[in-house]
Amino acid sequence: MQKIFEQLSVTKHLLFWTLLAIPVSLTAGSLVALFLWLLDVVTRFRWEHAWLLYLLPLAGVVIHFLYKLWGKNSEAGNNLIMDEIHQPGGGVPARMAPLVLITTLITHLFGGSAGREGTAVQIGGSLASLLGKWFRLSKEDTRIILMMGIAAGFGAVFGTPLTGAIFALEVLAIGRIKYNALVPCLIASVFADIVCSAWGLHHTKYHIRIVTDFDFLLLGKIILGGVAFGLAGYVFALSSHSIKSFSNRLIKTHKWLIPVTGGCIVILLTFIAGTEDYLGLGVTASSPDGISIVNAFNENGVTSWSWLWKLVFTAVTLGTGFKGGEVTPLFFIGAALGNTIAMLTGAPVELFAGLGFIAVFAAATNTPIACTIMGVELFGSDYILYYAVACFTAYYFSGHSGIYTSQRLAVSKKDGATLED
Amino acid sequence: MQKIFEQLSVTKHLLFWTLLAIPVSLTAGSLVALFLWLLDVVTRFRWEHAWLLYLLPLAGVVIHFLYKLWGKNSEAGNNLIMDEIHQPGGGVPARMAPLVLITTLITHLFGGSAGREGTAVQIGGSLASLLGKWFRLSKEDTRIILMMGIAAGFGAVFGTPLTGAIFALEVLAIGRIKYNALVPCLIASVFADIVCSAWGLHHTKYHIRIVTDFDFLLLGKIILGGVAFGLAGYVFALSSHSIKSFSNRLIKTHKWLIPVTGGCIVILLTFIAGTEDYLGLGVTASSPDGISIVNAFNENGVTSWSWLWKLVFTAVTLGTGFKGGEVTPLFFIGAALGNTIAMLTGAPVELFAGLGFIAVFAAATNTPIACTIMGVELFGSDYILYYAVACFTAYYFSGHSGIYTSQRLAVSKKDGATLED
Repeated sequence: MQKIFEQLSVTKHLLFWTLLAIPVSLTAGSLVALFLWLLDVVTRFRWEHAWLLYLLPLAGVVIHFLYKLWGKNSEAGNNLIMDEIHQPGGGVPARMAPLVLITTLITHLFGGSAGREGTAVQIGGSLASLLGKWFRLSKEDTRIILMMGIAAGFGAVFGTPLTGAIFALEVLAIGRIKYNALVPCLIASVFADIVCSAWGLHHTKYHIRIVTDFDFLLLGKIILGGVAFGLAGYVFALSSHSIKSFSNRLIKTHKWLIPVTGGCIVILLTFIAGTEDYLGLGVTASSPDGISIVNAFNENGVTSWSWLWKLVFTAVTLGTGFKGGEVTPLFFIGAALGNTIAMLTGAPVELFAGLGFIAVFAAATNTPIACTIMGVELFGSDYILYYAVACFTAYYFSGHSGIYTSQRLAVSKKDGATLED
Repeated sequence: MQKIFEQLSVTKHLLFWTLLAIPVSLTAGSLVALFLWLLDVVTRFRWEHAWLLYLLPLAGVVIHFLYKLWGKNSEAGNNLIMDEIHQPGGGVPARMAPLVLITTLITHLFGGSAGREGTAVQIGGSLASLLGKWFRLSKEDTRIILMMGIAAGFGAVFGTPLTGAIFALEVLAIGRIKYNALVPCLIASVFADIVCSAWGLHHTKYHIRIVTDFDFLLLGKIILGGVAFGLAGYVFALSSHSIKSFSNRLIKTHKWLIPVTGGCIVILLTFIAGTEDYLGLGVTASSPDGISIVNAFNENGVTSWSWLWKLVFTAVTLGTGFKGGEVTPLFFIGAALGNTIAMLTGAPVELFAGLGFIAVFAAATNTPIACTIMGVELFGSDYILYYAVACFTAYYFSGHSGIYTSQRLAVSKKDGATLED
């Protein structure tokens, strides 16, 4: 009899979370849809008005003071949400959602090199936190609703619901997934993706043609690529952290000078690079044959050093206080690096661009299983084994610190020792 | 500098495990290939000589005494391997591999209803343990090589390497994956699968046609199906455990009477069911339109109660001491139940057979992520979201005890509470 009660109590638990998922995903999905639409509008506007870049330092000052005046503790962004899941404290402020939305749009309008997943995750997280307070959830349930917020934001922004759910569970600690919110996260991300699509938002389609059967030489190249992708993720995390701490040590008073300097460096970099293609999101470029994620899937679609340019542009932008996510730039860096490696080793370009796309992200965020599944959701199942090899290898070579400083270390990559529950 | 040493030490770690993976996967892959070939031979032989079934009670006695005389502690099978990973002790005896191979073939030759993954996992595990002793591995490294053995056996026997690697990590505890052997397991299962295929072994191909775009009604049916699949997995685990403990309480001396009784019941059940299709592996039947896993993917390919028949046949066979795995019968139960649910609710039969195939297995072994990936490896990526919904739901409804009694409980399904590291 006790066993039957167990199933009944699971049913109750799931019904409860399904009902809670509805407001989370309706609001998060809709706000992410609005965000994606506005992002598209400001990106096109910037393409038509190239001079906006010169106002980037000024935009940085505006963002700085917006957070200083109204931000409370929300500047910590994704890390704050993760901290609240690890150890519920003061909660995630509701103002995080509008603030990050507006400041990300400002960053993109004036040409900062940034992404969008951070914004979506923060929108999801802060809405979830607000709902949690309204419904007076317990500490344990607040953790779950925050994870649902992450899943909803991530699932909606990239149109990859299963990846969103796994990501929300996997990102919290390096080397471990716990299933304490498996189904709630899946429900939230599926619903949020449906809501976002219902608003008419469509996601970029990528395509990898079937190039070959299994062969050992290709597997060797993929492992080599995985090592390179891992190191690239490592260098990216290291540089953005270093730029942040260095600029904070250099500029002790008048902190608004940090984004001004950052903005000036981005302008300077644009002149040196001789192209505006490293500004903004980079999924597509202003001209059809410009350097972009989509073109990284074509032979000669990017230059040999495009990945490094995008890495530097993004590390400077985000390291000096501009807003947005890291993930889309990581896709760019990975796809471009994959393209370069493929051209150098004579491997299929589309495949390697796709592998780099997911593996650099896996390395920088320490989420190899979510990224393998992202490969399936974006590119299909033919190469699932290659996705896993690239993501797992990259994960091992990215060291023990990713882009999220609040991520905990559960299992060592060096010897597999358990460090924390 | 310390950071660079970190990457170097990861490289050393990975090279070490890649080298160790070669003997593990060469031996495990080859032995699994031999096993699959012999399994095919004995199955065909039994189809041609139906009278062999009447010797099943006698075969049970032989298996009983084989283990009693030479088995040492290897009768514990998969559970022993899992125990050794949790808490390294006396090790897995090398004799486990030949013993389980021979006794599984005996079970199948005389018509016991059983699977093959248990056998493959035990072959992999005992070979890995032997190699670990030869190479004088430390306790921590012995755990990793045992996981590699599980991954190699599982990857090779079903031709699903990524599933094998994830399964080896996921099966150890309910509600948690730890990445302490992520890449070693992947290397071992990929190599073992390649070795097994190189011997000319081919795996059954399943196919789900694209039936429909996303719709909410279908999603509802899949959630309902997931609940049913979860309960079926739960009932299966419960019945085989109950039959085992009941028969041990009933027959206190002359334990060999247990398999004799089990064999007689299977003969009786065959008469009642009026078909031999529930004997043996069940991937295909002796006649092309018999009841089998492959035919469960067709409308009217199985009867409404085929899933329950297979459940009873298998629980009796394995609960009374015959050998083999549980997974292929779980595939059968799931595919047949999926077929029945699809016919009842008017859902696409192929899709539901595929969902049941993976979800009942996910429920009974508490491995929802491995089974979602198995869906992709076997049926392609079009329905990855449905695989996840079915497997995750089934996982929640299978209670806290699966078919492996040595599996630990890490995270509660009821409220997500962490119970053990």
